[in-house]
Amino acid sequence: MLYSANLDSVLEKEEYLCLMEPLRQKIQTLGQLVKSEKIPVIIIFEGWGASGKGSFISDIIENLDPRHFKVYSIDAPTDTEKRMPPLWRFWSRIPSSGQIALFDRSWYYDVSVGKIDNNIDDETADEYINNIRIFERQLTDNGYLVIKLFLHIGKEEQAKRFIKLKSDFSTAWRVVDRDIKRHKKYEAHFKAFDNMLSLTNTDYAPWTVVEANDRKFARVKIFNTIISRVEEMIEKKKQEHSTSEDIPSPKHNVIKMPLISEISLDKSIDPAEYKEILREEQAKLRTLHNIIYQRKIPIIIVYEGWDAAGKGGNIKRIAQALDPRGYEVVPISAPSHVELAHHYMWRFWNNLPKTGHIQIFDRSWYGRVMVERIEKYTPPHIWKLAYNEICEFEKYLYDWGAIIVKFWIHIDKDEQLRRFEHRQNTPEKRWKITDEDWRNREKWEQYEMCCNDMLKYTSTEYAPWTVIESNDKKYARIKAIKTLINAIEERLEREDNLF
Amino acid sequence: MLYSANLDSVLEKEEYLCLMEPLRQKIQTLGQLVKSEKIPVIIIFEGWGASGKGSFISDIIENLDPRHFKVYSIDAPTDTEKRMPPLWRFWSRIPSSGQIALFDRSWYYDVSVGKIDNNIDDETADEYINNIRIFERQLTDNGYLVIKLFLHIGKEEQAKRFIKLKSDFSTAWRVVDRDIKRHKKYEAHFKAFDNMLSLTNTDYAPWTVVEANDRKFARVKIFNTIISRVEEMIEKKKQEHSTSEDIPSPKHNVIKMPLISEISLDKSIDPAEYKEILREEQAKLRTLHNIIYQRKIPIIIVYEGWDAAGKGGNIKRIAQALDPRGYEVVPISAPSHVELAHHYMWRFWNNLPKTGHIQIFDRSWYGRVMVERIEKYTPPHIWKLAYNEICEFEKYLYDWGAIIVKFWIHIDKDEQLRRFEHRQNTPEKRWKITDEDWRNREKWEQYEMCCNDMLKYTSTEYAPWTVIESNDKKYARIKAIKTLINAIEERLEREDNLF
Repeated sequence: MLYSANLDSVLEKEEYLCLMEPLRQKIQTLGQLVKSEKIPVIIIFEGWGASGKGSFISDIIENLDPRHFKVYSIDAPTDTEKRMPPLWRFWSRIPSSGQIALFDRSWYYDVSVGKIDNNIDDETADEYINNIRIFERQLTDNGYLVIKLFLHIGKEEQAKRFIKLKSDFSTAWRVVDRDIKRHKKYEAHFKAFDNMLSLTNTDYAPWTVVEANDRKFARVKIFNTIISRVEEMIEKKKQEHSTSEDIPSPKHNVIKMPLISEISLDKSIDPAEYKEILREEQAKLRTLHNIIYQRKIPIIIVYEGWDAAGKGGNIKRIAQALDPRGYEVVPISAPSHVELAHHYMWRFWNNLPKTGHIQIFDRSWYGRVMVERIEKYTPPHIWKLAYNEICEFEKYLYDWGAIIVKFWIHIDKDEQLRRFEHRQNTPEKRWKITDEDWRNREKWEQYEMCCNDMLKYTSTEYAPWTVIESNDKKYARIKAIKTLINAIEERLEREDNLF
Repeated sequence: MLYSANLDSVLEKEEYLCLMEPLRQKIQTLGQLVKSEKIPVIIIFEGWGASGKGSFISDIIENLDPRHFKVYSIDAPTDTEKRMPPLWRFWSRIPSSGQIALFDRSWYYDVSVGKIDNNIDDETADEYINNIRIFERQLTDNGYLVIKLFLHIGKEEQAKRFIKLKSDFSTAWRVVDRDIKRHKKYEAHFKAFDNMLSLTNTDYAPWTVVEANDRKFARVKIFNTIISRVEEMIEKKKQEHSTSEDIPSPKHNVIKMPLISEISLDKSIDPAEYKEILREEQAKLRTLHNIIYQRKIPIIIVYEGWDAAGKGGNIKRIAQALDPRGYEVVPISAPSHVELAHHYMWRFWNNLPKTGHIQIFDRSWYGRVMVERIEKYTPPHIWKLAYNEICEFEKYLYDWGAIIVKFWIHIDKDEQLRRFEHRQNTPEKRWKITDEDWRNREKWEQYEMCCNDMLKYTSTEYAPWTVIESNDKKYARIKAIKTLINAIEERLEREDNLF
């Protein structure tokens, strides 16, 4: 894309002023417009050192109300960020609907300047680029507008600008050795940039290369691009969506799962043996927790299941074996106001474990294809995308190094009734049962269907589902803890075999 | 406090079991209780290495519902944390009402183990301790329950425990060189701990020293302490508060301010000269921004003022001169649901600049003594504390190294009416005026009184107020930018004189 850019593009002052005035006026209403249309907007500025990223961002935001935007400046990741998946620091910064986030450098850092600075090999870079494509698709599929600007200047122009910056006392410090080093490798960077642009120039998140040797020309092009992309988006939002009930066939290899109605629930454990077995398994898990902490392996455990299936008690038996400094239980209920205004995965990204830690989700991102589907909180053309998005999310975490264990805690309808009635009739347990539980129970068949779809489309090699038969809670606890232990042991064996 | 502790305290098994069962049952209902009473609870565990902090925390949380608590494990600050005021990482982690936060080590890190590890001198430690006292008082004054447990074991016992940990493969890695080093300096640590405990054993946040040579004795004491402190708190909440209208006299040296009605508003600037002067001042500010960035000086700018006084336009003229990567405008409106459930300063702590950055607050923590006072969102015995709390907050930031500049953007009542009517009659400006603005206008006299109190009690040497006469907006912009430039230049001069 860079080869075809014409760096001689210029605008004469008169023409510039004539074009710029209406653009500036439009930009001034942009914040209001984006807010009233509830569009979350991401604008990223990539490009050469000294190409003017900072001052173009200034040009834009001085026309916006400070309540409508936020600027993020991206550099090498911090210590904390290094203990999280690479895209975490971007996911956690995505804007809410009606907000504009401007990024001075972005998730392209590691595949552009970072690639050459840190000698990242092509294979790693390709994988990263693939993840960027998925990231941007997940954003745009869920209503985000992603505007990507690449500021392009020639080698001579860059040299000229560095010299000018250097010559002024108050700006000289901005030109660091790294910049000069990068300048000397202009050609290598050119190739890397061009490759990156081609591979990530998608229809949902296209690049605009901005010829920036002439600042006036660049400014007009940037303003124009932003305005027209926002206007297009507003047009697009008005379009009708298909309402077909078909779920797109999965793009990931899935493990065949039985229908939950086919699962026999008569499994049980001898109560006399339970305590002893539990103690043994907890001791094993305790030791393994120490090891994964030292090896910095993150673990993600997902609990889904029927109301009153015994998730809480099950989680407790696992938590008892863990060092409290190394795990956290994340209870998921209805999203807050702020969470609702973000991509639905945002709150889960914000709650991922760091390396060596365990995160236990009491309910999870599967709400998207369960309660949100059943209660019609989310339209069909959106929740249907989630099976694939979730697999991509889990694959990404797996590739990062996480162990992912997912439990469906299963009971039958009669057992649920028995437990509801027991709760209702036991004063100190009554707070645990609400009208909503009874309402959900009436939708048992719908939940069953959704559960079958969920198991069918999202059980993968890297993040398999395990159905935990929980009519006998004690049996369920032992099965869950054993499943977790197995998953950890398998990983450790595999790692040991690598050496 | 350590000298009087009896480390021979033990509990026989039978007595222990008999005492423990009812305590365990009470702890199980604690989460529910704290939630229904809406008390934010902080429990900190300090003490010797291997004194059992982790496992006592486990004992407690295994009896709690995961929705009711969070565990934080505190170690040396990260890179990001080092660029913020030392207490920032604790302020950002305080629980919301109805939540329990358990800290494995805490803000005492730097005055206990950290003091000796890092050779922190007594003066620095004393200042830190003073800030801890203020921190804990601000929490408890605003409804927080702070329970502080110090786990005490003898030198021999510690040696025994380290040897035991070392002898087991899965726990050996936990004993690091630092622990052994600390053990060898047991006596020095004993003195430092004892000093720290005495200086921070306040009536609002007292210490409980837990003799932990015998784990059973310790467990009972810990459970007992937590339960009784929560019960006391619930009792205390029922007490009546004084409703006197007097504001306690300030504990800080304040600068005498005029009443705002005495301020002449006929100041103006020649419109012909305005553009030129603005350009010059912006150029100066741009250069200074570079310098403070390099010297890592944080700047906090507060804008308060009448509706339609011109805050937005004033902020814009300052922002235009700044590099967007080095500043942020934080617009403050009504607190969200989550913010309301925290200490009122929490959201401001979460928005502080890092070193070298500029944070511009468009409205601020002064809402506590303005809108919250006038609209009765906060009872008098609480907002009255805020003058002092705010001075403490600003003093802390100043001591950390921040420059603090506070503007009251001032117009008179007639001018406001003109501007409101102009907005009402100009279609593209109509969104800027709401019914609430008209309602606030009716309370002009009340706001005036509150403003006078605010200026009277919170204008200090380290964070002075500047009243900006804004009937002429252009005059106001020049005065604000000049005030900011002066504040920066003064600081730089003072620093230069130090060398």
